[in-house]
Amino acid sequence: MSNIDIISDKELQKGIREFLETAPDIYMAGVSVDTVIFGFHNDKLKALMLRFGNTPYFVLPGGYIRKEENLDAAAMRILQERTALKNIYLEQFYTAGNTNRSKEEVALELTQKMIGTIPNSNWFTQRFVSVCYYALVDDTKVNPVTEIFFTEVKWFDVNKLPKVLYDHDAIINKALKRLQADLDEKLVGFNLMSETFTMGQLQKLYEAVYQKKFVRTNFQRKILSLGVLERLEKQYSGKSHKAPYLYRFVKTS
Amino acid sequence: MSNIDIISDKELQKGIREFLETAPDIYMAGVSVDTVIFGFHNDKLKALMLRFGNTPYFVLPGGYIRKEENLDAAAMRILQERTALKNIYLEQFYTAGNTNRSKEEVALELTQKMIGTIPNSNWFTQRFVSVCYYALVDDTKVNPVTEIFFTEVKWFDVNKLPKVLYDHDAIINKALKRLQADLDEKLVGFNLMSETFTMGQLQKLYEAVYQKKFVRTNFQRKILSLGVLERLEKQYSGKSHKAPYLYRFVKTS
Repeated sequence: MSNIDIISDKELQKGIREFLETAPDIYMAGVSVDTVIFGFHNDKLKALMLRFGNTPYFVLPGGYIRKEENLDAAAMRILQERTALKNIYLEQFYTAGNTNRSKEEVALELTQKMIGTIPNSNWFTQRFVSVCYYALVDDTKVNPVTEIFFTEVKWFDVNKLPKVLYDHDAIINKALKRLQADLDEKLVGFNLMSETFTMGQLQKLYEAVYQKKFVRTNFQRKILSLGVLERLEKQYSGKSHKAPYLYRFVKTS
Repeated sequence: MSNIDIISDKELQKGIREFLETAPDIYMAGVSVDTVIFGFHNDKLKALMLRFGNTPYFVLPGGYIRKEENLDAAAMRILQERTALKNIYLEQFYTAGNTNRSKEEVALELTQKMIGTIPNSNWFTQRFVSVCYYALVDDTKVNPVTEIFFTEVKWFDVNKLPKVLYDHDAIINKALKRLQADLDEKLVGFNLMSETFTMGQLQKLYEAVYQKKFVRTNFQRKILSLGVLERLEKQYSGKSHKAPYLYRFVKTS
């Protein structure tokens, strides 16, 4: 830890300091929100993570709950601030509450290196229980936004996570388990796809979420039997009559 | 409200007052735990509820999280205090966080009627986010325990709830939805049954949870196809050779 070189950055310092000074007046103490934002690209399931200051550590997009704000609204605000997206599919899946989860000293040590004395440090080092949400986004529409503590927003393959702070790797694993259940039960997968897609692309999504291979014919039979896909007319491209069919999800609700 | 007759009870008053005086030093502020304890008897799915003081209102068993206690441990402690059971099947399913959920004035008004001036009333009227768990218990083994605020512990049919405080009716509905999903997915139902049971009893449980009727032959075929039931040898009772088979769940983990 002590060998990490923290680059001095006046703007970053000012933003962090302002946030730390005002936060205890604005936000609930003891409860925070963390979000696992899933996207699907290049056949991989990815999660959006933020670089903590100018350190090598990454964290999940998260934040605090305003004193007069509903919990779900706080989660949606945090997501929109980070992705600039509206109408995000958002699902609360877990609340993390071990006593040692916020006792991670690294974040505090790093912050101290970045800005010197920490205002209201007692407020930030108190124990926080974190309510966790996962979100499904069409990554082509996301325009990630950095802010205050964070100098970089980056997609990571869920199987190749960077160094993380707190218990955020465990939270991502929990989110993945819940996504697997929901993909089956609530057919939420279309939130990760473009409007139209081929059967092959959909199979790649399911393989990325369940982290295993499916047999093409079995997958196709099973998914079609659910009655949620609409096959579109082939558009003559002038090139090949072997172009695969395009599908889209039928919105049932 | 103002017509409710609050019976004076010195022991109750003393217990409540002691609790209110010490709670802020012992417990986290802003986060609480509520539990929906499901039991199955007389073919009905029931939830255990507590009478608030000597009022007509009931609440879910719940409590606060000790400052040095893990969240899951707090839920288990609260359950054990209330049911005197060990090895309870316990599942976190939801965190309730609307701003108006703790703003219910009734509990405070009732407490005031019971004990007069309320110590630390600011601590109790602050906003609480509540982490909710459901538990599945064999009701024949439960020995409900009253304590502090509560003068009666009672099972209620989930379709015939009494007057409740806070958002506890909404929380029970959420728990029921999650139980429906988990009964299918994780086969948690055996926690609600005695060690052995007939196919008819099991069907009644599924009907109570899903709140609909099943066709006997279909139900039997489906449940046997899961491969989780073991059929026991009939014991000759000397009475009837038509006694139904008994089954038990095979523990797979």
